Amino acid sequence: MTDFDYMARAIELAEQARGWTNPNPLVGCVIVKNGKIIAEGYHERVGEWHAERNAILRCEEDLTGATAYVTLEPCCHHGRTPPCSDLLIERGIKKVFIGSRDPNPLVSGKGAHQLRQAGIEVIEDFMREECDQLNPIFFHYIQTRRPYVLLKYAMTADGKIATVTGESKWITGEQARQNVQRTRHQYSAIMVGVETVLADNPFLNSRMPNAKQPVRIVCDSQLRTPLDSQLVQTAQQFPTVIATVSNNMQKIEQFQAFGVQVLQCNEQHKRVDLHDLLQRLGAMQIDSLLIEGGSQLNFSALESGIVNRVHCYIAPKLFGGKTAKTPIGGEGIGDISQAVRLTLKSTELIGEDILLDYEVL
Amino acid sequence: MTDFDYMARAIELAEQARGWTNPNPLVGCVIVKNGKIIAEGYHERVGEWHAERNAILRCEEDLTGATAYVTLEPCCHHGRTPPCSDLLIERGIKKVFIGSRDPNPLVSGKGAHQLRQAGIEVIEDFMREECDQLNPIFFHYIQTRRPYVLLKYAMTADGKIATVTGESKWITGEQARQNVQRTRHQYSAIMVGVETVLADNPFLNSRMPNAKQPVRIVCDSQLRTPLDSQLVQTAQQFPTVIATVSNNMQKIEQFQAFGVQVLQCNEQHKRVDLHDLLQRLGAMQIDSLLIEGGSQLNFSALESGIVNRVHCYIAPKLFGGKTAKTPIGGEGIGDISQAVRLTLKSTELIGEDILLDYEVL
Repeated sequence: MTDFDYMARAIELAEQARGWTNPNPLVGCVIVKNGKIIAEGYHERVGEWHAERNAILRCEEDLTGATAYVTLEPCCHHGRTPPCSDLLIERGIKKVFIGSRDPNPLVSGKGAHQLRQAGIEVIEDFMREECDQLNPIFFHYIQTRRPYVLLKYAMTADGKIATVTGESKWITGEQARQNVQRTRHQYSAIMVGVETVLADNPFLNSRMPNAKQPVRIVCDSQLRTPLDSQLVQTAQQFPTVIATVSNNMQKIEQFQAFGVQVLQCNEQHKRVDLHDLLQRLGAMQIDSLLIEGGSQLNFSALESGIVNRVHCYIAPKLFGGKTAKTPIGGEGIGDISQAVRLTLKSTELIGEDILLDYEVL
Repeated sequence: MTDFDYMARAIELAEQARGWTNPNPLVGCVIVKNGKIIAEGYHERVGEWHAERNAILRCEEDLTGATAYVTLEPCCHHGRTPPCSDLLIERGIKKVFIGSRDPNPLVSGKGAHQLRQAGIEVIEDFMREECDQLNPIFFHYIQTRRPYVLLKYAMTADGKIATVTGESKWITGEQARQNVQRTRHQYSAIMVGVETVLADNPFLNSRMPNAKQPVRIVCDSQLRTPLDSQLVQTAQQFPTVIATVSNNMQKIEQFQAFGVQVLQCNEQHKRVDLHDLLQRLGAMQIDSLLIEGGSQLNFSALESGIVNRVHCYIAPKLFGGKTAKTPIGGEGIGDISQAVRLTLKSTELIGEDILLDYEVL
């Protein structure tokens, strides 16, 4: 096993907590002595111990002279848990490989510095790119205090999200839909437009076994969400938010009686100002937001520039139809130079569908 | 080098003629003696020698006891050239590896049989799948006598082929557009709807250096193609066909005066019956047809069931727009069960765009 293998194992460990650590990062740690892994750990849930502490405290062997591989720079400050750098020093660790840097500019480099001061050999930026890929949400949230936004849609190979008569169940196959359930588990909140509530009356939970349930948000400028919709009816059970620009207090109180949290946001062009909404969600510790349509909300989100990432599922089907709905509607852009530009990060075949994973430039 | 390597080399040779052999197949041949390639050849152009003959007649060494690798079963009948099986036997070839079977059921297996009768060891279906992939067009044409149809379009990641104001230049990048030029070279004919002629006044040639020029076809039920369009004006230089259901002889004669060939086809729903058109094109030795839109013709072609393959280029851009054009228009299907079903054969990153290559089920 090489240093690369040990860090790859630490990444693998970190991955196991995906969905459970928000708004904290995914972090993994492997400790090696005499060519053997003697301790492993990862940050399992928000509020619980850090990866290094989990590895060290669960290990009964003497760690003197060992090498640690951590996917993120160890913390050196007293937060909810005592600093990990102290623990590594106390136990006599001799060498530390670090993947990602701490994204907080006030802290970045301090953990490594403290280890070096104590005589530990520190190798920074080791497999940094791979480690960074664990935590795009964390890096974005810690720097902006606003949620990282993923826009997700599923369409046919000719760009339709429904037939001309409005049939849309289902575009993609079973495996792709399961993949969406996994994504829902990984995001802190999920948002749809009120048109989607009116058309589909969705439940918007994650149907994965043991999934974390995202906060469900309806973007509903004029409070048209029906009181008998599934979302409102289950609001006591699963956190539910309506974002609006309405001042209709009578309606607002009706929603609140069902346990719905109503966010009165700033107005922009008679719609919810999405930047203001993101600010409010960030303050609620929501580090990540999955937008699942409809096509009007999708366009508003892209136009306002809040989208960081796009997941485009493409089914091997063609619907045709001049009037059939497409994933992104609204007014659209007129001049090609105004188009939203993307970078294709990866493609993945899921069942018979393909997932294109884009970053917004 | 193994038998697999020699056959792979024969496939590589066959590929070199792509675009030049229609309506004949691509075929390659490698001859090996004492572990050394002593002869190579491929079918270079329609009407010229077959691969085996090219390999054998250009080789000055004694072929007695050698092994031949051919991507397609050698012919055993007198066509434009004498049978290849005779030549292999005459020169004392000892063993023959064959990739694809002859798709003509009347001939299939006869070449191999004749070789065996002469005491040659024959291994059939060797790397057959790889060899078959050289010639989907040939296999289709020889069995149906109608052209193999590829539908090609380029769209944004939200399924648009133009912005709401109709801007469409360009959706994809330079490399993807060059790839389309290569495809045009490989197809015998290229077809657009009259709406595309009216909107874009295209030239529809292949701008690759030394490219074979496809026959240019306009599907134009009511003869609305302008006489001053680029297509009509250059019809003396590049073969040009208008497919119509009109009987307006005066107009037809005007087109003919420019060198345009007018095909009066059967009518279906006031439009050109595409099955009838394909029959006529097949009779003209057109073995392959590339359809490049617009969205009405694309839908008619899919609806009528004439499309064999779909090339969907996706640019990393989003246009949005409820009324922006999508690649496949027309009436569309209503019930999802009526959707045209595809199988994804491959994906290819071309510059920053992605090409999804589908077969129609």
